[in-house]
Amino acid sequence: MNLETIIFGNNSLRIINQAELPQKFYYVDLKALDDVLDAIRTLKVRGAPAIGIVAAYGFFLHLRQLSEKNRLIEKNVLSAAQKLTACRPTAVNLSWAVQRMVTCFQENKNREKNELLFILEKMARDIHENDRRSCQFIGEYGSQLLNDGDSILTHCNAGMLATGGAGTALAAVYHAVAQRKRIHVYVDETRPIGQGARLTYWELRQNGISATLITDNMAASLMQHGNVKSIWVGADRIVKNGDVANKIGTYSLAVLARYHKIPFFVAAPMSTFDTKMETGKQIPIELRDKMEVLRAWDVKQNEYEVYNPAFDITPHRLITALITDKGIIQKPNNINIQRMFHNNFKES
Amino acid sequence: MNLETIIFGNNSLRIINQAELPQKFYYVDLKALDDVLDAIRTLKVRGAPAIGIVAAYGFFLHLRQLSEKNRLIEKNVLSAAQKLTACRPTAVNLSWAVQRMVTCFQENKNREKNELLFILEKMARDIHENDRRSCQFIGEYGSQLLNDGDSILTHCNAGMLATGGAGTALAAVYHAVAQRKRIHVYVDETRPIGQGARLTYWELRQNGISATLITDNMAASLMQHGNVKSIWVGADRIVKNGDVANKIGTYSLAVLARYHKIPFFVAAPMSTFDTKMETGKQIPIELRDKMEVLRAWDVKQNEYEVYNPAFDITPHRLITALITDKGIIQKPNNINIQRMFHNNFKES
Repeated sequence: MNLETIIFGNNSLRIINQAELPQKFYYVDLKALDDVLDAIRTLKVRGAPAIGIVAAYGFFLHLRQLSEKNRLIEKNVLSAAQKLTACRPTAVNLSWAVQRMVTCFQENKNREKNELLFILEKMARDIHENDRRSCQFIGEYGSQLLNDGDSILTHCNAGMLATGGAGTALAAVYHAVAQRKRIHVYVDETRPIGQGARLTYWELRQNGISATLITDNMAASLMQHGNVKSIWVGADRIVKNGDVANKIGTYSLAVLARYHKIPFFVAAPMSTFDTKMETGKQIPIELRDKMEVLRAWDVKQNEYEVYNPAFDITPHRLITALITDKGIIQKPNNINIQRMFHNNFKES
Repeated sequence: MNLETIIFGNNSLRIINQAELPQKFYYVDLKALDDVLDAIRTLKVRGAPAIGIVAAYGFFLHLRQLSEKNRLIEKNVLSAAQKLTACRPTAVNLSWAVQRMVTCFQENKNREKNELLFILEKMARDIHENDRRSCQFIGEYGSQLLNDGDSILTHCNAGMLATGGAGTALAAVYHAVAQRKRIHVYVDETRPIGQGARLTYWELRQNGISATLITDNMAASLMQHGNVKSIWVGADRIVKNGDVANKIGTYSLAVLARYHKIPFFVAAPMSTFDTKMETGKQIPIELRDKMEVLRAWDVKQNEYEVYNPAFDITPHRLITALITDKGIIQKPNNINIQRMFHNNFKES
């Protein structure tokens, strides 16, 4: 199945409204910057690579409308870029994609208007297409770590819905299944928002993958009984030493994996790396509204104090390998990550 | 505050309907065996000590009605006892309390009807009153392990709502706070049923205890940041070697506690011990309906395969101490538990 999370055409950006999955499956059109900002903030689109792609298109759409209505002023463009980046502070793909668009804008701002827009649309499409290809490579590399008959555990949604392609962690599953390996996926429901229960389970089902839903607190018991062969997650940011920011609950699984001697794999494209940060301690963690937690319980909001961080930090020592579009980084640390960058980006 | 979870009077059993807390706080009257069976099965009353008490009263109520309408036949009484015990297979207090009532019945079955009922009512009231006292002792012992300024984490509900008194794990908190120690409680929401979100948070608030609600998958992150001084849970069954069955998610916390070098305390009365079982592997684990998990997500039930065990097993090696009504068992294992029994129950 080819689930297209993000479609761009005729100067219009169309995304699956993930906030209403799986009850309702439909696309919404984002026509202006405000639509894009709202879609990212309200999780109509989520997943680090996906919000990077959507932000790139959003930057283009904004510039296009500016060019029609206003003068092209750099200040306005930079302010829009700033707003996009600020939508969600943890996922680095967002600022990475926006920065690429800004740089492209600045390099070409003196060109004729239509030419500038042509170049910027191509840049957004390239970011999208490159992510699709990255997913494919991650799937190929990742599937090498999956064996016929494996039961694995995944958290949140690191699939088609989170990217411009086949996903990150789930791409490995799709690729392995395409190779006729039998894979069963245990899906953490992923409180509070239920990306596992709502998105991953639905996505796996659409793709005919065998899956079982559990609550997050059941994962350890499954591991204790030997039912989990490996654990697969995505990433919102990976820093220089290999520490990973990902959906809250990821760190918990990494500790449990270590205790049960189960491999813990993080799959992400190179665009998820933030080599400007030395360790995970520097990564800003987004705190979200307490209603995300309380909604499930039909209780009085004002009577509850809730701590609701959207992400946590998994230290690199707990990660067996990073699965990237450029290859597998075993035992991620400063040196092993630098080597991967050196081999692939010699120009930089 | 004195929250009475179970009240018996005028041959009527009155319990808080915990299935509707905290939205609605009201008592329901259980008049016959079927009411009691239903209340236990549908979690109107839950918590190992509490269901033991309710089952004891239920046994009495059934016998009383039998004596009015039918002949007192042992077969009927034993069948009722069997039904009560089968309601929930994991909590041992249930079969413990029912067995005490059955033994009492058999020892006195040849007495005059009213005399038999008098004796059985007294036995049920004793079970209730002894649990109240057990909670008090657990609170006193447990509070020795809490220091002024501690932030602790608890899972599920091991409080007043789970017992005939001040609770087990939470009794320690109440006692410490009464001693003017400042204690902050992080409350795991405890998926899928939300005993933490619905019951513990509400109960702590009723008692003026400072609390913060988190989702189960946030606990590890709190520990990573040094925000959890100790972890406190109750138990549904403790076997000979100290292995503990408790609400699903308990084992996860025990592993996380070990990794973060945080003390992990299990509080329970001696009636929670099942010394007929050697290890936790023998404990039957109740599997519950998948709707408990799916209800939160408004998804199509028939499209989901869900694994929903109500309990998990925590090996004794991960438990820092068992807090009982007879004292604290440090490093629980066969020998240390036997010593506690030997010192307290020399007749047996």
